[in-house]
Amino acid sequence: MEEKAMKAIQDDYPDDFACCYGCGRLNESGYRLRTGWSGENTVTIYTPRPEHTGGIPDFVYGGLLASLIDCHGTGSASLYLHRKNGNEIGDGIHPPRFVTSSLNVDYKHPTPIGEPLKAIGTVEEIHPKKYKVYTEVFATDNLVVTGEVVAVLMPKTFRKENT
Amino acid sequence: MEEKAMKAIQDDYPDDFACCYGCGRLNESGYRLRTGWSGENTVTIYTPRPEHTGGIPDFVYGGLLASLIDCHGTGSASLYLHRKNGNEIGDGIHPPRFVTSSLNVDYKHPTPIGEPLKAIGTVEEIHPKKYKVYTEVFATDNLVVTGEVVAVLMPKTFRKENT
Repeated sequence: MEEKAMKAIQDDYPDDFACCYGCGRLNESGYRLRTGWSGENTVTIYTPRPEHTGGIPDFVYGGLLASLIDCHGTGSASLYLHRKNGNEIGDGIHPPRFVTSSLNVDYKHPTPIGEPLKAIGTVEEIHPKKYKVYTEVFATDNLVVTGEVVAVLMPKTFRKENT
Repeated sequence: MEEKAMKAIQDDYPDDFACCYGCGRLNESGYRLRTGWSGENTVTIYTPRPEHTGGIPDFVYGGLLASLIDCHGTGSASLYLHRKNGNEIGDGIHPPRFVTSSLNVDYKHPTPIGEPLKAIGTVEEIHPKKYKVYTEVFATDNLVVTGEVVAVLMPKTFRKENT
C-alpha cells in the first residue's frame, strides 16, 4: 500500500482542526500521519526521520511510537464512526473528531530506524461516544510495538459552531 | 526551579547513548528533556514549542505528553538506581541506562500550549532491574496528565563494552 495514495480521514478534518503535530495536514513541522481503511482494519504508515533516534542510535525513540499509536487511534475512531454514520472519506462531510482519553503502549522489541512503520488498528465501540482502538505496529514484517487507545468524541465545548 | 540550572541525569549519559530525540543532550532536533531530583521525587520541566499543537490549536498534542512521560520515566529510573548504587549526578560515573517496557498515559484535562510543563515522578523498585515510575504532569499548578512507565535496565546486548 502506498502511503500517499491511500485515502486518509485526516484529509477531511476541518481546517480549524488540522493543526495536530502528529496528524494535522496543515502542521508543516509535524508528522502528518494519515489513517485509512485496509479491509476491516485501519492503517497508518510512517517512516521516522533520521533524528528520531532513541537512547540507542539504531532504534526509534519511544515517544514517536507513542505518537503514532495515539494519532492512529483517534483517526481510527473517526473512520469507524464516520462509516457508522453512513459517510466515507471524500464525500464532503466533515468526519467526527476524537480526543485521547488514555494511551497504553507495550514496547515488544527495539524498532529499527529507517524502515516504514505500519500501524494496523482494530476498533471496538465501548459506548456511542467512546471507542477502543487496538494497534499493532510492524517494522517491515516484524511486530515491534502494541498499543491501546481509548478515544472519546470531542466535547462540543471544544468545537466551533461551524465544524 | 530553573530548568537549566537543575543537575540532570541526562548530562551524564555516555555520548554514545545521548542521541534520544526525547532526552538526548546531543540530539539537536529533539526536546533535550532533563530529569533531576526534587527532594524524594524526580522532576522534568519542558515548555512545548508553538508547533506542538494538538487537534485543537490551543492545546498540546498527546504524543508530546507521552514523550515527556516516557523519557522522564527512564531518566527517573536511572536517577534512582544511580543513587542506590552510591552515585550522584556529576560524580564522573556513567549512570545506568534504561529502556521503556510499557507506557500508560491518562489525559485528564486538555493541556494548554505555551506554559512550562512539570513532570513529577515517584519511583518504585519492582525488581533490581525493573522500576515503575508514576508521573503527574502539571501545567502551571493544574494536573493535566498522569502516567506510568515500566523501565527496564538496558540489556547488555544493547551496550558497547566501554560504556
